[in-house]
Amino acid sequence: MKSLVLEEKHSLSLRDFPIEREEAMGSRDVRIKLHTVGICGSDVHYYTHGQIGPFKVERPMILGHEASGIVIEVGSQVAALKVGDRVCMEPGIPDPNSRATRLGMYNIDPAVRFWATPPVHGILRPTVVHPETFTFKLPDNVSFAEAAMVEPLAVGVHAATKAQIRPGDVAFVMGAGPIGLVTALAALAAGCSRVFVSDLDDAKLEIAARLGPITPINVTKQNPAKEILAATDGWGAEIVFEATGSPKAAASIFEPLCPGGRVVLIGGQSQPIAYDAGAAMVREARVENIFRYAHVFPRCVAMLSSGSIDVKPLITRTFAFDDSVRAFEIAASAPKGDVKMQIAMPQ
Amino acid sequence: MKSLVLEEKHSLSLRDFPIEREEAMGSRDVRIKLHTVGICGSDVHYYTHGQIGPFKVERPMILGHEASGIVIEVGSQVAALKVGDRVCMEPGIPDPNSRATRLGMYNIDPAVRFWATPPVHGILRPTVVHPETFTFKLPDNVSFAEAAMVEPLAVGVHAATKAQIRPGDVAFVMGAGPIGLVTALAALAAGCSRVFVSDLDDAKLEIAARLGPITPINVTKQNPAKEILAATDGWGAEIVFEATGSPKAAASIFEPLCPGGRVVLIGGQSQPIAYDAGAAMVREARVENIFRYAHVFPRCVAMLSSGSIDVKPLITRTFAFDDSVRAFEIAASAPKGDVKMQIAMPQ
Amino acid sequence: MKSLVLEEKHSLSLRDFPIEREEAMGSRDVRIKLHTVGICGSDVHYYTHGQIGPFKVERPMILGHEASGIVIEVGSQVAALKVGDRVCMEPGIPDPNSRATRLGMYNIDPAVRFWATPPVHGILRPTVVHPETFTFKLPDNVSFAEAAMVEPLAVGVHAATKAQIRPGDVAFVMGAGPIGLVTALAALAAGCSRVFVSDLDDAKLEIAARLGPITPINVTKQNPAKEILAATDGWGAEIVFEATGSPKAAASIFEPLCPGGRVVLIGGQSQPIAYDAGAAMVREARVENIFRYAHVFPRCVAMLSSGSIDVKPLITRTFAFDDSVRAFEIAASAPKGDVKMQIAMPQ
Amino acid sequence: MKSLVLEEKHSLSLRDFPIEREEAMGSRDVRIKLHTVGICGSDVHYYTHGQIGPFKVERPMILGHEASGIVIEVGSQVAALKVGDRVCMEPGIPDPNSRATRLGMYNIDPAVRFWATPPVHGILRPTVVHPETFTFKLPDNVSFAEAAMVEPLAVGVHAATKAQIRPGDVAFVMGAGPIGLVTALAALAAGCSRVFVSDLDDAKLEIAARLGPITPINVTKQNPAKEILAATDGWGAEIVFEATGSPKAAASIFEPLCPGGRVVLIGGQSQPIAYDAGAAMVREARVENIFRYAHVFPRCVAMLSSGSIDVKPLITRTFAFDDSVRAFEIAASAPKGDVKMQIAMPQ
Repeated sequence: MKSLVLEEKHSLSLRDFPIEREEAMGSRDVRIKLHTVGICGSDVHYYTHGQIGPFKVERPMILGHEASGIVIEVGSQVAALKVGDRVCMEPGIPDPNSRATRLGMYNIDPAVRFWATPPVHGILRPTVVHPETFTFKLPDNVSFAEAAMVEPLAVGVHAATKAQIRPGDVAFVMGAGPIGLVTALAALAAGCSRVFVSDLDDAKLEIAARLGPITPINVTKQNPAKEILAATDGWGAEIVFEATGSPKAAASIFEPLCPGGRVVLIGGQSQPIAYDAGAAMVREARVENIFRYAHVFPRCVAMLSSGSIDVKPLITRTFAFDDSVRAFEIAASAPKGDVKMQIAMPQ
Repeated sequence: MKSLVLEEKHSLSLRDFPIEREEAMGSRDVRIKLHTVGICGSDVHYYTHGQIGPFKVERPMILGHEASGIVIEVGSQVAALKVGDRVCMEPGIPDPNSRATRLGMYNIDPAVRFWATPPVHGILRPTVVHPETFTFKLPDNVSFAEAAMVEPLAVGVHAATKAQIRPGDVAFVMGAGPIGLVTALAALAAGCSRVFVSDLDDAKLEIAARLGPITPINVTKQNPAKEILAATDGWGAEIVFEATGSPKAAASIFEPLCPGGRVVLIGGQSQPIAYDAGAAMVREARVENIFRYAHVFPRCVAMLSSGSIDVKPLITRTFAFDDSVRAFEIAASAPKGDVKMQIAMPQ
Repeated sequence: MKSLVLEEKHSLSLRDFPIEREEAMGSRDVRIKLHTVGICGSDVHYYTHGQIGPFKVERPMILGHEASGIVIEVGSQVAALKVGDRVCMEPGIPDPNSRATRLGMYNIDPAVRFWATPPVHGILRPTVVHPETFTFKLPDNVSFAEAAMVEPLAVGVHAATKAQIRPGDVAFVMGAGPIGLVTALAALAAGCSRVFVSDLDDAKLEIAARLGPITPINVTKQNPAKEILAATDGWGAEIVFEATGSPKAAASIFEPLCPGGRVVLIGGQSQPIAYDAGAAMVREARVENIFRYAHVFPRCVAMLSSGSIDVKPLITRTFAFDDSVRAFEIAASAPKGDVKMQIAMPQ
Repeated sequence: MKSLVLEEKHSLSLRDFPIEREEAMGSRDVRIKLHTVGICGSDVHYYTHGQIGPFKVERPMILGHEASGIVIEVGSQVAALKVGDRVCMEPGIPDPNSRATRLGMYNIDPAVRFWATPPVHGILRPTVVHPETFTFKLPDNVSFAEAAMVEPLAVGVHAATKAQIRPGDVAFVMGAGPIGLVTALAALAAGCSRVFVSDLDDAKLEIAARLGPITPINVTKQNPAKEILAATDGWGAEIVFEATGSPKAAASIFEPLCPGGRVVLIGGQSQPIAYDAGAAMVREARVENIFRYAHVFPRCVAMLSSGSIDVKPLITRTFAFDDSVRAFEIAASAPKGDVKMQIAMPQ
């Protein structure tokens, strides 16, 4: 019964870490046996850098926060779930009494405890205790692998929700990494007639181009604003999603935007970005800044089940749990052609 | 060179009606040779009743307002269109100086002149002069038949836009006629994960069920609210679209609605409806009342082109223009299994 | 140490009712000594009818839910309040785990427990235990009497919030009772340049006309739609608030409304209302149905403190607690010229 | 019959400039005799620098765009105005056929022609021809001086509208110049319970503090974020308006902002600003970028008339037209204690 433990920067162990025995079950909690866990860029970053912003790995920490599993125990007041239910889980638990949570914005409650964000352990381990309200039952036609994609997909769906897309909008997604691609899928599902996706890497853009009415733009060869304006009779894209985290990309968010358009900043930025206030002004741009997601997990599950969104093309490799250290080494090498790697937990 | 003329109630003629010769071209107008024209329920209603609400057929009037065609002449200030362009046309022309138009709500400008609404002639005729701003160029992959569907589709897309659908919403569309079906398609394209559609007629519901993740409900056998609540863990649908125009349907719009849900009333009602204010109140329902559409034609064209929406299954019969009187007789008989009939104009 | 107890319909007693001794303090609760309590129409209705909709007085119940007081005890986890704080209290406590509550819409959680709504006791009694999160500290310049007005004011402010008033809008408030008047005040504070208020009763309209740029309309002598259209160059009011609960009033909500306007239904209706769907359609009206309020108590306190809203003119009579039975008798007689009566609790 | 002509940078003349004789009246135009004209910072900037961004004074240009006057002639199709009407005028005329204009966003139509923006002449001259739709009749209780304040006030009201203020919000306005002050007034009128205003200059802050529930913050002595967080129990302001145009101010817009808050950028910036994307993200801030105003002139007039907003304290000096060159010299010296200077035209 092992867990994947980040002992410190650059040091991963598969070892016994009996956290489950310490976890108390509350009356509204469920205990879940993990089934599939996706590897996120943040997991890899803790492995390679030991730190993200103010969050520093100071003690051994279990990694992983994109997960699906099976309910194996339910608290006395749990009503909607039962033992044997296949589920996926939202990794952040807010303070129910905070002002932000009560207003419905629990994702920006500063007190959120989020898996695999120090000092909170992640879920590359046998089992976890989790509140029922953040655990979502899967329909039969959603696989564990797809369900472990709900967490990154939720970022894209939250971005698309905040963008207030109107049917027929044209969107531009900057970045063809996992978050860029789920955002493109979410934008199409949310009503965009067409999405432009940019990146530096042709391999990623090829994957993007196969996902729907998506036009790839390689920024090393093409000027995105020029392409988008040409394709829209000079009007521009109604929505621009920034999903690269690159300061250079962030400096050009308004050029391809139409009058009255909206920008959604998804990618984190470690330094202030150069914001072209003049270009934003003449368009009366609205800029939405988003942080993770709120209230969208069950929506993602429903869209996977109905076929509105298909994430299967994004799952490019699966590792056995025994190979999970190697999986992280590969992920850290940023292999071309891979979007999302997952780990199958022992069953 | 004939037109289809409603001489008076119950009397249609295919005859020369030289309106084109009288129409002046303005500098911002184009002249269009008609290609395909859909038959709308309102056309049929003028034929069978001679009147809709305050609009009465008092002189011979050409029918038809769902149309596509080819530009054959352009005014001196026309910039975006040229001779030979394949186009579809928005049938209502507002007063550009009215307060509603200036606010961007030209569809509710009382001065709108709308094709085949007395005393304005429709377009079942050889050619028409129309403003460039209400004429939309078709991409190569959108056929004339699909383009003539843009007008009814625009009603559904406008309804879906006003509903402010969030990705993953569940919708309920009351009515599986042409407007109900385009609304269901628009709701799915706009982000709904699942749509319930109700009707009295199994033939229509079978067509609906083939259009996507749509669950048919026959109201003669099933209780919609009960079905929808059961399918949503007791929560209800986020959006209810009323597209029947039936007072009975309108009286039950809130029962299947979730807390905080939105209702869109599409179907016209000749009498006040029984509005269950208590049921609306405990849900804090928002009710949007819509009238035709505004700003959505180019969006519909874009969604047809990208494949976001496929209207081809709704076009169930096509008549030659010479058979158009018979087409109206058939349409007036409300044949089972037909959704949209179209007329191919002589080329 | 007495409470005001509704023994059954038509029977009020001032008697010992030792509910306080039974109330357990939770760690996040405070105990409050009541200071001022307003008499609401619903309190009076339980007195005169013993029932409101499905809520029936089947056992003796303490009345009152509009209240201010002083904190006399705090739970171990209470952070923002301390003994001695002057406060007002929100009377409805939702289930924090319900779906509606988590979405931020706790007012439409069906599990809400609301003071003086059977079987929940009200607060015309010496003390009450209440959650800190629904208890709001008063600035020095807000009196206990004003603070006991926050509950009805919250209805008006919630209505004005839902109306999404834009600066300079014209509003029409149907009904000059306490809720109509707080709605008119809230509409002005929220940006309306001018408010029309209608009623049958000149005495109420005279009070209304003194509250700001408010134009009274006596519906027995004037046609509101005609007056409002004449005053707005034929455009109409941007917002109509229905605060009478009268079916007749509800049947005419769209006539004075401008194209693209919004209607807010505040007044409860025991039967379905006659909804003029045709008039709503040609205006593309948006109708908001509201239920009590959510998240507005601290906003009301802030607006009373800053002077944005002045409720003092609405407090027309104050009774000693020992006279509270008589106060209810007077309130039940619907005296002309009275808006809000309050009861001063023994200190 | 003289005009105030900017011959070139630093050179103003009062001289005959017979532009009126050349102006053709259209059927929907009115001719207006100017009465009062305010001096805007942009007028002064053209005087002192000869250029604003891409707009360069290359030929003599009449200055002035904040104006009121009297209708002296009306076109044949003018319906709402008549000779003798007292009016104020919106200085920007868009292309009615542009896409932005048709969507209702005429202010961001790139083809707008705006008074006193090269090569378009301003209105410090005897008369002007203007479209009826951009000319607004004044109620008797709005003076010409107040009416000439509508143009700058419109910027504040547009900002407050875009901010979607909810009743009781707390706002922070950065900058106590004319635009900062009208924004503070608009924010209060639009529902804010309290407004903080910051500046470097105590004289301006003293004026601000007299306008309502406004708390001045001198940024040379106080930290705005610290003050605002302390005054709001650590929550922050719901709205931040940036009205300084200072890059330093723009770099700190998120610090005083609450979770889920909105920022409105009003002040123009000549260079990209340093945008703290991390601070924006953890708050899920929404940033609105605005450009002038649309559809708010009649709203401003209505609010001045009803008393919702009082701009009279902002009009600190009035000059005779014969002294207008001196007025510009004084304005260019940025005198302490002056907010808005106006010029009274010869009558």
